[in-house]
Amino acid sequence: MLRVNAELLREQTVAILRGWGMSAEHADITAARLAHADVRGIDSHGVALLLLYAEHQAKDWINFTPEITVLRQTPVITLLDGDHGLGHVPSTLAMQAAIDKCRISGLAASAVRHSNHYGAAGAYSLLAAEAGFIGMSFTSVWNSNIVPTFGAEPMFGTNPISVAAPGRNGVFYLDMATSTVAVGKVKLAAMHDKPMPEGWVLNAAGQPQTDAHAALREGIRLTPIGGNRTLGSHKGYGLACMVELLCSMLAGGWYAPTRAARGRREDPRPNIGHFFLVIDPAQFRAPGEFEHDLDDMLSALRQVPPSDAAQPVLVPGDTEAAAMRERLAEGIPLPDPLVQQLRQIATRCGAPVLL
Amino acid sequence: MLRVNAELLREQTVAILRGWGMSAEHADITAARLAHADVRGIDSHGVALLLLYAEHQAKDWINFTPEITVLRQTPVITLLDGDHGLGHVPSTLAMQAAIDKCRISGLAASAVRHSNHYGAAGAYSLLAAEAGFIGMSFTSVWNSNIVPTFGAEPMFGTNPISVAAPGRNGVFYLDMATSTVAVGKVKLAAMHDKPMPEGWVLNAAGQPQTDAHAALREGIRLTPIGGNRTLGSHKGYGLACMVELLCSMLAGGWYAPTRAARGRREDPRPNIGHFFLVIDPAQFRAPGEFEHDLDDMLSALRQVPPSDAAQPVLVPGDTEAAAMRERLAEGIPLPDPLVQQLRQIATRCGAPVLL
Repeated sequence: MLRVNAELLREQTVAILRGWGMSAEHADITAARLAHADVRGIDSHGVALLLLYAEHQAKDWINFTPEITVLRQTPVITLLDGDHGLGHVPSTLAMQAAIDKCRISGLAASAVRHSNHYGAAGAYSLLAAEAGFIGMSFTSVWNSNIVPTFGAEPMFGTNPISVAAPGRNGVFYLDMATSTVAVGKVKLAAMHDKPMPEGWVLNAAGQPQTDAHAALREGIRLTPIGGNRTLGSHKGYGLACMVELLCSMLAGGWYAPTRAARGRREDPRPNIGHFFLVIDPAQFRAPGEFEHDLDDMLSALRQVPPSDAAQPVLVPGDTEAAAMRERLAEGIPLPDPLVQQLRQIATRCGAPVLL
Repeated sequence: MLRVNAELLREQTVAILRGWGMSAEHADITAARLAHADVRGIDSHGVALLLLYAEHQAKDWINFTPEITVLRQTPVITLLDGDHGLGHVPSTLAMQAAIDKCRISGLAASAVRHSNHYGAAGAYSLLAAEAGFIGMSFTSVWNSNIVPTFGAEPMFGTNPISVAAPGRNGVFYLDMATSTVAVGKVKLAAMHDKPMPEGWVLNAAGQPQTDAHAALREGIRLTPIGGNRTLGSHKGYGLACMVELLCSMLAGGWYAPTRAARGRREDPRPNIGHFFLVIDPAQFRAPGEFEHDLDDMLSALRQVPPSDAAQPVLVPGDTEAAAMRERLAEGIPLPDPLVQQLRQIATRCGAPVLL
């Protein structure tokens, strides 16, 4: 396990993106959004994503020199076309536009179409919180993993929801997939040869699958949050629908499962959509009241008697804030196989190997 | 079990509300929002709520002649003060204001403070969908039932989320509590003397409680969607936080658990907040595209191979649409105890008994 300074990791990320043909400006923004996850301990959504992007690059799915265009612009709405580049740059521009409009209008929404993976959903909602606003971020996904309640086939990506908001003493930061667990947890269970809890994954018949190796062989079928109908999976399924509705139907992305059937087979590239919303608390409350009341709730939650004295109650963002303190001081831990793969990716695209 | 014509039930509801001193105009609106739930089979949120409102009326928690005022108004934002009346009227006005503003701006948000129970969250999101827009509706609750992950004490109401949107052939209609199950399901289990599945409710030590009688005795501690940490309850907990953030911190409601501690003990009345959002799909897509693509997704979902041939895959709103067809034709089924209680309530407030 290598501990890498965040700045060095950023430089390696920029170098690889530049090696793939991305401009310096776009590479800087993309690397910053990936670093957001690495410093906060969201290991699945930081530099580890470069492995996924390398696969998509090899398939020619990603335009590394996109011309991002504004399709529509009103005092409260922005619609961008990502021109099939990675999602981080158009999403940053879209969230920044919403923040700028929110300063004037108090409320703004942005959407991006013809995009790709945008990293962690929370990398964008947090930009709004840092500007003093409530930020929300949603994305669709290029492939399908979540199985609807009562079904046996996956019909949604992990369709995440992120909400961030400013308190006086820190941010509220929620970033969650609408599946019970992430694909990474299934891979981890397989790696450690451990059975999965019932409720994470289904088999091809739509029944609980606890064998991680079998799940990987069959194609991963994740349950929506709730796990099964008795425990409320129709709610997780409903939320996955909502995210798809905002990112595919509204933003103008493609709904992955019907894409081939609907005659869009000719273009192999994904068309992922993103949706962002920004709200100014000062439109509703006197200055500082929102931030005060948010802190009041978060403090009250942290003081709830725990069911296990060894594990205090946390609030959304606590885990990430603790990881950030530790990682900015000690460096970001990278497993050896990841370091080796990043070195190979750098070498293959002619980038300097900095790790 | 009595089958009651929807119009007669509406008249009985209006008569009771009038008996409590509500104006004819407010009673009509409130009855319409309650009927929304009754005709759609959401029995917990229709006229059965009059039993709860009667309790709150007896405690003098509800102002039946509120002066609803506009605290703030911009081209995209409306903030109303409900003056401690029931939530249905200010919420209808707030959603209608957002719809009107959305026609011009393409995006609008409304909030209500100093309110009470507003019925089903979906009664408001659906108003937006009927106007051709995406509607969202959120509310806080006067008491606490949901226990945060790792905790042993309830810190949120069932904090619901509703999203509705227009397809070409019907609406997408999601209305969900952020708890695994509603309080009503616990009462039902007790009534039938049946154990509850592990994952619905916790005991006072924060451990799974499967005895419904014990749960009712101890005070109901609902799990957030997910049920436990392994199955993702931190996500349901995060969503409950998000709803509270929009309805208490942003709208200016009171966060119930800290209310007494923060010196607001003098006023016994709840201060529930609601938040509404409306988005015009035509701001992002060409006319009809959103509705077409939404239907396309909903059709694809209904055609997913089911895990049990006897139970096809449903989409959010299917159950409610089926109930509505049946109930508008056959009448609304009311259990005898409910009919008796409604008759008593009507008698007590001097209203005609119509059932």
